[in-house]
Order: sequence, then structure tokens, then C-alpha cells
Amino acid sequence: MAIKTRLTEFFGLEHPIVLAPMDPASGGELASAVSAAGALGLLGGGYANRAWFEEQSAKVSRPDVGCGFISWALASDPGLLDLALQRHSRALMLSFSDPAPYAPKVKQAGIPLICQVHTLEHVKRAIDVGADVIVAQGTEAGGHGLTARSTMPFVPAAADLISRRAPRVLLLAAGGIADGRGLAAALMLGADGVLMGTRFWAAQESVIHRNAKEKVVTASGDETIRTRVYDVVRKKAWPTEYTGRLMKNGFIEKWHGREDELRTLQEAELQRVEQAWTSGDYDTANVTVGEGIGLINDIPTAGDLVKRISAEASACLSRYAAARSSIAA
Amino acid sequence: MAIKTRLTEFFGLEHPIVLAPMDPASGGELASAVSAAGALGLLGGGYANRAWFEEQSAKVSRPDVGCGFISWALASDPGLLDLALQRHSRALMLSFSDPAPYAPKVKQAGIPLICQVHTLEHVKRAIDVGADVIVAQGTEAGGHGLTARSTMPFVPAAADLISRRAPRVLLLAAGGIADGRGLAAALMLGADGVLMGTRFWAAQESVIHRNAKEKVVTASGDETIRTRVYDVVRKKAWPTEYTGRLMKNGFIEKWHGREDELRTLQEAELQRVEQAWTSGDYDTANVTVGEGIGLINDIPTAGDLVKRISAEASACLSRYAAARSSIAA
Ligand SMILES: Cc1cc2nc3c(=O)[nH]c(=O)nc-3n(C[C@H](O)[C@H](O)[C@H](O)COP(=O)(O)O)c2cc1C
Ligand SMILES: Cc1cc2nc3c(=O)[nH]c(=O)nc-3n(C[C@H](O)[C@H](O)[C@H](O)COP(=O)(O)O)c2cc1C
Repeated sequence: MAIKTRLTEFFGLEHPIVLAPMDPASGGELASAVSAAGALGLLGGGYANRAWFEEQSAKVSRPDVGCGFISWALASDPGLLDLALQRHSRALMLSFSDPAPYAPKVKQAGIPLICQVHTLEHVKRAIDVGADVIVAQGTEAGGHGLTARSTMPFVPAAADLISRRAPRVLLLAAGGIADGRGLAAALMLGADGVLMGTRFWAAQESVIHRNAKEKVVTASGDETIRTRVYDVVRKKAWPTEYTGRLMKNGFIEKWHGREDELRTLQEAELQRVEQAWTSGDYDTANVTVGEGIGLINDIPTAGDLVKRISAEASACLSRYAAARSSIAA
Repeated sequence: MAIKTRLTEFFGLEHPIVLAPMDPASGGELASAVSAAGALGLLGGGYANRAWFEEQSAKVSRPDVGCGFISWALASDPGLLDLALQRHSRALMLSFSDPAPYAPKVKQAGIPLICQVHTLEHVKRAIDVGADVIVAQGTEAGGHGLTARSTMPFVPAAADLISRRAPRVLLLAAGGIADGRGLAAALMLGADGVLMGTRFWAAQESVIHRNAKEKVVTASGDETIRTRVYDVVRKKAWPTEYTGRLMKNGFIEKWHGREDELRTLQEAELQRVEQAWTSGDYDTANVTVGEGIGLINDIPTAGDLVKRISAEASACLSRYAAARSSIAA
């Protein structure tokens, strides 16, 4: 029942599934569990926080794990890239803003370079800097991104561009994929596999408070929004075109559209958010997830998830094949 | 090579494809051509303009064509619904705002009711008013809609809700589907078929100026935007949550974000837009299309399109089936 694609061949995987390098959800335990299940785990290097990196890097139990960073954030501690390339050398992913400053180092190390992109212009740029794998992310995704494209029309357009310009480059679909139906659909669209964030965020091993995961299990996919409020309150220097997708809550309801006022009260509000992280109050703390929450009904282990999603995708792919061959017969 | 689904069985179609009732693109000739090709053609009753309806209704050459209206616009001429039910009785589609005021008449006439929806709350409402077919539209779609959901995560969530509440109801995916890859993906997501607008908009028979179609053929999917500017200039009374997706042009660049100023200059600007429609100047006139334009490279007849999309979807569905059975063997 295994699904073979160019991605599984390239990385020697059993399943065409990659864990998104989510800051802070994708810690060492989650990334290791995903790789152990025959998919590709990526450590969430994110904002390049060295203390977090050291803590979670130490929990990585396997050599077949990679790492991902937010490109613009690497400037604060470029040495972390060297550490990641030494320790978690299965792949290095760069997301959000131009990958050019860091791509050469990854290429020189001979480590597979994954670039996450949000427009066709980004696809071209990723090809130009030598990406081995391109992740086409739609706006339904959890976490940061653009509103420019949605997964359904973006992936086939990216596939066409790649096949014209650099057919050796692999393509992953990301955004709104949370079960086997999404994986099967992504393959139909021309992707070689999927990168999933939100679904793994709600796995046992992710570094997320239990209260937040439980909130997501009962939520509908109608309940997310793209906003800047948590970037404002945390003083994250995101380029202006990026917003984050999160589950709506009291904090967003209060501040979305009033970002200027929030800036003036930033210190006090940050304190409230930090307290909420500790106490597990997710009406004030951020629940950073995408529209895929509508497809999440449980909190399984990452290994069980990988197997379930792959089996469900296989079943989807077989269903129409069977129907079609019975017609042909 | 035919793809059989609950949709093809319900309507007796050869292909699980429905033409969106686009105002003004889906005229009598286009709707007839789509039905003639073994898919389901819907006349674009749209804003309930009686002159347009009479002109295009007269061009419908077949009994197996249906019609669609913008629900809130029907209030201006409810009698058009009766005309449509008499003349184009294959199906009646209601989109945008509550279908409840008009659904009973459609049901009493014994005509299949199709409801287009944008959130899971809308899905529930459509079930409650007796929809036979629900169209789950993502924000990547051309024309009006919401930003709430994208097709990839919305369709499987809608499928789950329908299978719990009203399993007899059929589900179509809409938004960003413009080729066989999209059709195959939609089937994987749990849809019984697709509703396509943008792709048919660029067919030979659509009631759209040749210059506009040619603009789209060379455009990238990165070049669309959701905006209200053409609703403001045309004084269309859209409920505030709806925006339209169009291809970016000079008019949008000028007015997007300056809608209040546009209101004060509305008459003069409308004159400019109307002149542009006549002269075929689509830097000023609206090019109402979705992200799917990135997948459009030609202007074929609607019949050729239906066949091509269905054949391509079949090939996609077979590809992984073949790969998987060769692994099993
Ligand atoms: C909580 C969370 C944190 C994320 N952090 C990062 C990050 O640090 N770096 C990154 O490249 N992508 C990050 N992403 C985005 C993912 O790479 C990916 O695009 C997204 O999760 C895919 O959509 P999905 O959430 O619908 O699966 C994050 C996503 C989530 C949900
Ligand atoms: C030019 C244009 C006009 C449209 N007009 C209508 C309309 O009058 N009534 C309606 O229900 N939907 C209308 N739609 C939306 C379609 O029903 C459908 O949701 C959409 O086209 C699907 O996405 P796609 O364009 O990516 O195929 C229109 C779409 C376009 C592109």
C-alpha cells in the first residue's frame, strides 16, 4: 500500500509526507517521531532562538532529521545554520523572504535545500538559488504566509513552471492538508508529496500546551483568520506582506484592526500573553493553526498519524481506479 | 475512460463537471455547449436582469440546461425565477446570501436545487432548505465570495458535515479548478464533481470580449485580487462580507483601498468603465476571474474543454493506481 513518488525516492522515505518545521511545535521529539515513521521530520528552527534550538536539538534521536528556519530571522544568529547543517543534515528548509543569503552554504554542504514559496515569482527565485525541493504554500496554511495564492490552483501552476524550468526539482503542497484525502489530492495536482503543519501540531509529541490542542480538536475550519496582532505584540519583525493564520480568540477579536493602539500598549499586552502561555489560557495566547483544524478530531501520536494518512490516501487513490477499471471492463 | 460519480448518476451526465452560472459569461450558447458535451450547463441568471435573461434564454438550444441566480438580487424581479424554472428546468442554483426565500419554490417545482456556500454554517443552511447539491466555493474562485475558506481544506470538511447530516446531498468543489488535475483532486477530497467558472469564461462561446480572454491566456495566477471597486462603481448592493476576485488592472490599482473617494466620483468612473467594455479596454473594464487563470493557455470550445478535462482527470487517477499496483505486484 506504500505510495511511491519522486520524493520518497529522493529521501528514501516510506511515505511522501514532510513535517513542517514549526516554531515552536516541531521539537526534537516530534521531528524524530515523524522520521521514525518513514516520513521526513524537520526540526522547527524558526526564529533562530539558540536556547530553544539547543534544547530541542538535544532531543533529536535520529540522523535522518532535517531542520528549517525563517530566512529573515537567521540574520540574528547565522551560526545556527552551521549547527543545523552539522547536526540535522537530512535537509535544510528556508521559508519566508529571500533564501539567497543562506542557500549557498546549504548547497556547499551538499545538503538538500528545501524552499517554501508563496507565489510563482518565489518559485523562480527558489529554482535560481538551487532548491532541490520547493514547497508551494497556500493561504489556508497555519502560521505565516501570504494571501496571494491558495493550494488548489497554486500547486499545479507551480508544477507547470517547474517542469518547464527545472524538471529535476521536487514539489510539495502545503496548506490545508490534514488527512489522506488532502495527500491524495496533492498528488493529483502534480505534487511529489505534502508538507503538513497544523495536523502534526495536534499530535502528542508537538511542543504545544494540551489546552491548545484540545481547543483545536473541537473547532471548525471556519474559525481561523489571518492577522498581525501576535507579531505586533511579540515585536516580530515580519516583512509587511506576511500575516499569520491562527484560530480566532478573544485576543484577536480585541486587537485585530487596532494594531496601532496595540503597539502603544505592547509591553502590558505581551505580559498578558506570556502569562497565558504558562497558564494555558488560549483565549489570550495564540493558537497558530490553519483551516485544516476542521479536519482534526483527535490527538494521536505522530507515528500513528503518518500511517493513517498514508493508508487513507492509498484508499482514496484506489477508489476511482477500481471504479474506472470496472467501467473499462 | 468516463468518470462515474454520484453526480453523473444523479443528472445522467457523462462527466462530473458543471458550468458555473456566471453573469454575464454563461450565456445560452455556452450553457448549451457544456450540456451538449455531456456535462451540466447552467445559464448565468446572475443579477436577475430580465433583458439579458430573455436574450440569452432564447439562445439555449437544449432542454438539459439549468440556471443560476444571485439570491439577494432575485428580490428585484422574483418572476424571473418562475421563468427559469419553466424554461431551464434541469437545475436551479442559488448563490450568495440566504437561499431560504427562494428554495421552497424550486423544491415545489420538483427541480434539483443547487446551493453555493462559503462556510460550514452555510452548508448547514443549505441542507436545511433542502439543497440536492451543495457547491463548496473556496476564496481562490473567480467572481464573488468570501475570504473565509480555501477549496483544499473546505471541501473535505463539507463532505464530512454532509455525510453526518444529509448523506444523500451531493457535493461539488469550486474555486481554482481549471484542468483535469483539479477535477481529480476534487474527487480525492470527497467531492462528487466540480463547478468551474474561470476556465469556461475563457472558452470560445462565453459572452466575454475577446480582448479580455486574450489577457487571461498570458496571465499568471499571481495576478488576481479580491476587491470591491467594481461593485462600488456599478452600485451593486452586495452584502458587505462579499468581495469579488478579479485580475489586477489599472482601474483596481487606482481605486482599491480608496473606495470612499470612488463613491464620490462614481458616475464619471462608471462611464469610463462602460466605455471600456465597448472598446475592449480591460485595463479599465473588469476581468472577473480567479487564480485558475494561471492554468489557462488557450481559448478552446467548451465541448473540447469538457472532454480534455475529463480525459486528463482520468489519466491522473490512473497514474497512481498503476504505480501502486505495480508495487503490490
Ligand atoms: C504553529 C505553526 C508554526 C509554523 N512555523 C513555521 C516556521 O517556523 N517556519 C516555517 O517554515 N513554516 C512555519 N509554519 C508554516 C508551515 O511551514 C506550513 O507552511 C504550514 O503549516 C502548512 O499548512 P498547514 O498548517 O495547513 O498544514 C508554521 C505553521 C504552524 C501551524
Ligand atoms: C466572471 C464570473 C462571474 C460569476 N458570476 C456568478 C454568478 O452570477 N452567480 C454565481 O452563482 N456565481 C458566479 N460566479 C462564481 C462561480 O459560481 C464559481 O464559484 C467560480 O467561478 C468557481 O471558481 P473558478 O472561477 O476558479 O472556477 C462567477 C464567477 C466568475 C469567474
